[in-house]
Amino acid sequence: MPKTEDVLRDIDDKFDIALGKLLELVSIPSISSESSGKEGIARAAEWLKRELSSIGLGADVIGTNGHPVVLARSSPRATGNEPRLLFYGHYDVQPVGDIGQWKHPPFAPTVIEEDGLHRFYGRGTSDSKSQLWTFIEALRAWKSVHGEFPADVVVVLEGEEECGSPSLADFIEAHRDDLACDVAFICDAEMWSATQPAITTQLKGLVHERVTISAPNPDLHSGHYGAVAANPIRILSTILASLHDGKGRVAIDGFYDEVRDIPDAVRRQWQKLSREPELFADVDLAGGIAEEGYAPIEAMWGRPTVDINGITGGNQGPGERSVLPGSATARLSFRLVAGQSPESIRRRFRSHVERMVPEGCRVEFEGQGGSPAVVLSQESAYLKAAARGLEKEWETPVILRGTGGAIPLVEQLSDALQTECVVIGFILPSDAIHAPDERYDSARLRQGARSWIRIFEEIRAQRPSQA
Amino acid sequence: MPKTEDVLRDIDDKFDIALGKLLELVSIPSISSESSGKEGIARAAEWLKRELSSIGLGADVIGTNGHPVVLARSSPRATGNEPRLLFYGHYDVQPVGDIGQWKHPPFAPTVIEEDGLHRFYGRGTSDSKSQLWTFIEALRAWKSVHGEFPADVVVVLEGEEECGSPSLADFIEAHRDDLACDVAFICDAEMWSATQPAITTQLKGLVHERVTISAPNPDLHSGHYGAVAANPIRILSTILASLHDGKGRVAIDGFYDEVRDIPDAVRRQWQKLSREPELFADVDLAGGIAEEGYAPIEAMWGRPTVDINGITGGNQGPGERSVLPGSATARLSFRLVAGQSPESIRRRFRSHVERMVPEGCRVEFEGQGGSPAVVLSQESAYLKAAARGLEKEWETPVILRGTGGAIPLVEQLSDALQTECVVIGFILPSDAIHAPDERYDSARLRQGARSWIRIFEEIRAQRPSQA
Repeated sequence: MPKTEDVLRDIDDKFDIALGKLLELVSIPSISSESSGKEGIARAAEWLKRELSSIGLGADVIGTNGHPVVLARSSPRATGNEPRLLFYGHYDVQPVGDIGQWKHPPFAPTVIEEDGLHRFYGRGTSDSKSQLWTFIEALRAWKSVHGEFPADVVVVLEGEEECGSPSLADFIEAHRDDLACDVAFICDAEMWSATQPAITTQLKGLVHERVTISAPNPDLHSGHYGAVAANPIRILSTILASLHDGKGRVAIDGFYDEVRDIPDAVRRQWQKLSREPELFADVDLAGGIAEEGYAPIEAMWGRPTVDINGITGGNQGPGERSVLPGSATARLSFRLVAGQSPESIRRRFRSHVERMVPEGCRVEFEGQGGSPAVVLSQESAYLKAAARGLEKEWETPVILRGTGGAIPLVEQLSDALQTECVVIGFILPSDAIHAPDERYDSARLRQGARSWIRIFEEIRAQRPSQA
Repeated sequence: MPKTEDVLRDIDDKFDIALGKLLELVSIPSISSESSGKEGIARAAEWLKRELSSIGLGADVIGTNGHPVVLARSSPRATGNEPRLLFYGHYDVQPVGDIGQWKHPPFAPTVIEEDGLHRFYGRGTSDSKSQLWTFIEALRAWKSVHGEFPADVVVVLEGEEECGSPSLADFIEAHRDDLACDVAFICDAEMWSATQPAITTQLKGLVHERVTISAPNPDLHSGHYGAVAANPIRILSTILASLHDGKGRVAIDGFYDEVRDIPDAVRRQWQKLSREPELFADVDLAGGIAEEGYAPIEAMWGRPTVDINGITGGNQGPGERSVLPGSATARLSFRLVAGQSPESIRRRFRSHVERMVPEGCRVEFEGQGGSPAVVLSQESAYLKAAARGLEKEWETPVILRGTGGAIPLVEQLSDALQTECVVIGFILPSDAIHAPDERYDSARLRQGARSWIRIFEEIRAQRPSQA
């Protein structure tokens, strides 16, 4: 029987091929939240179906009300007592944003040497095409060396993660049998540092909300009417400024009512991590206001927030224009913790805003759905096997961490299917996720793929029948 | 000697030609504050030079550090005792703004029948190409019927009015002799209503300012860092919300220190106008907050303001993007009253902002120059002659009004050349000045041109030598 070393060598030997394919995938602009991305979404889904089929999985592109899911399965073994492992990734990407802020093209990646790394730039490189590619490449190598997959395998690649996963609940409901599994590995999360892996056991919930304030008039000349007519930017600024108090707490009525406190044991764990120099190595917190009474790491992973993600109103330049705009819009997102429901937070926010809109002006809200927070067990056998595998590959202990990010699937899988989820990922704060010049590097891609081989080995080792 | 009636008939008879030419001028996109407008500026200047030459003026396009001025003069009369009249207009236009908000193309005007008017739409139709066209057409008709101009004539057409007239002071200094005149008619102002003319005797000053707040980091994932890192939109909103107190007063330290109170006589005049139903016929003030203690008309014409004209930061859509932006920018303008200096207001604003920027974040300001407010005499003979002319054409009394708008030239001419200025214009609040679907109509263009003939006649009548 081939050894783990043989599979790892196969990954190393064929790394140039795996990397080349990934860059091909990155070059497809699969932006899920803009209509211009539709063609890229379709192309990326077909591309992935082809790749998954080529490694021996039965793959399909499954339509939804929104963007399709790529679903692939191995043929069930004759023995029938294999564990069933689900792998989740998402192939959709964030919008590019202001292209002027990119130094590298967002959809034409090449590998360049930089800061001692072999980097490649592009939207979706780190979030999350490289990550899903780690487990696909690992499955390919294992199958190629062993002639079979390490267990029964299900691969789910979502196309709507970056726009709030609106079709995911329906998809899960319609494919309960396909998705039933012993453990779901969710591969879209951060490492602790470039040299230290992590498993994420606590994820925040997410609610997106857009608010537009309109004056009773369309655009007016601000010289003539600025002194007397409503200015939606001024009203909106006042509303946004009212969302926090001086202590960094959210000042929306009842915002904290359902919040569950961070358990003491977790708090102690996190406070220990707070002292790690890696934590904010790439981010400068100057000028930020964390909630009073909480260490930064506690605020990030365990306290709810409201963030203003965008604002637009009136003159967008380049020149001056003396205009009193007819409307102004802000885009916000709420990051929820255990206990908070998306519906209730949305309702509380809207009442807060409505109370501040002057008579005669209008407010419109856009946004629906959202996901609650998830707290996963740190005690499961699969999590422990994964931790051992990661430790072998990276030769250092695994950090059990939280995240401010949300992965709606995790909540839906654990809730709808009562599936155990293990959240592992290979990205870093320095990857410029959601930002211009998003990036990734070759070494992490390779080590990410190798990590899965180690994890497969640990899972096999803990099952007596396979010993 | 031909009669006034003959000249008026000439305007009526050739109105289709005059209108056609104006639409040609409107179709040239002479945007002064965007580099894309440079070609349009040059083309409009040449077009106007050709037109002014064709009616018998000696016309030139005079370069400046910014956009050129079109300067035209009549040959001085043999008698040497003619008054010298200067006519000022500007041929540059505001940027289009969000083209999606226009129902009509901004630079392809055609006349359409609407609301009982013959309207034409386009950027610059009302502000200010139709207005400068009224006096050019009047000069053409007078010359064509009388064989000579009504007096010595100077025409000054500026190309930078919509971007703060940065080159105007230098131009005036370099052309003092060319610009010397008995009276300057500034044609870029509002009527009182569609049926009632006005002369503007009080103009506000203007300061443009742009402020950008930058965090120490470039864009970050808001899920990961929203709880702890600086959000420039949040900082900027707080700053903008701090610019006014609850009574509609500007809350910048010392903002009112140099403000001269509105004189009692003027206050009484304006308060009387406050009761006119025309005042806010086209604008809904609901949701606006005028400064406490002042009628809306007093706030508009006689009290200083700060207006937020634009704001931009983070995700501009269409999709959601969970980003903590690296920076956010607001565009503001200050409307000054008598006593306030642009430099001092700019300085006070910048200190106010600087005090509110958290340590570790940066603030950048862009903006320079500006113009102070102007108060013109209501007693001059030229103003009275103009008022009589307007009353004859419109068959109703003239309103002496103020404006929240600024015309930097008025301050510079009265200051640098001690020139008497009379500010007359033919635009209305319903013209959507600076807004999408800016418009004008045929009847006002024709009556505007006819108004100048009446004014020329009154000026001649009051000079005994011409009686």
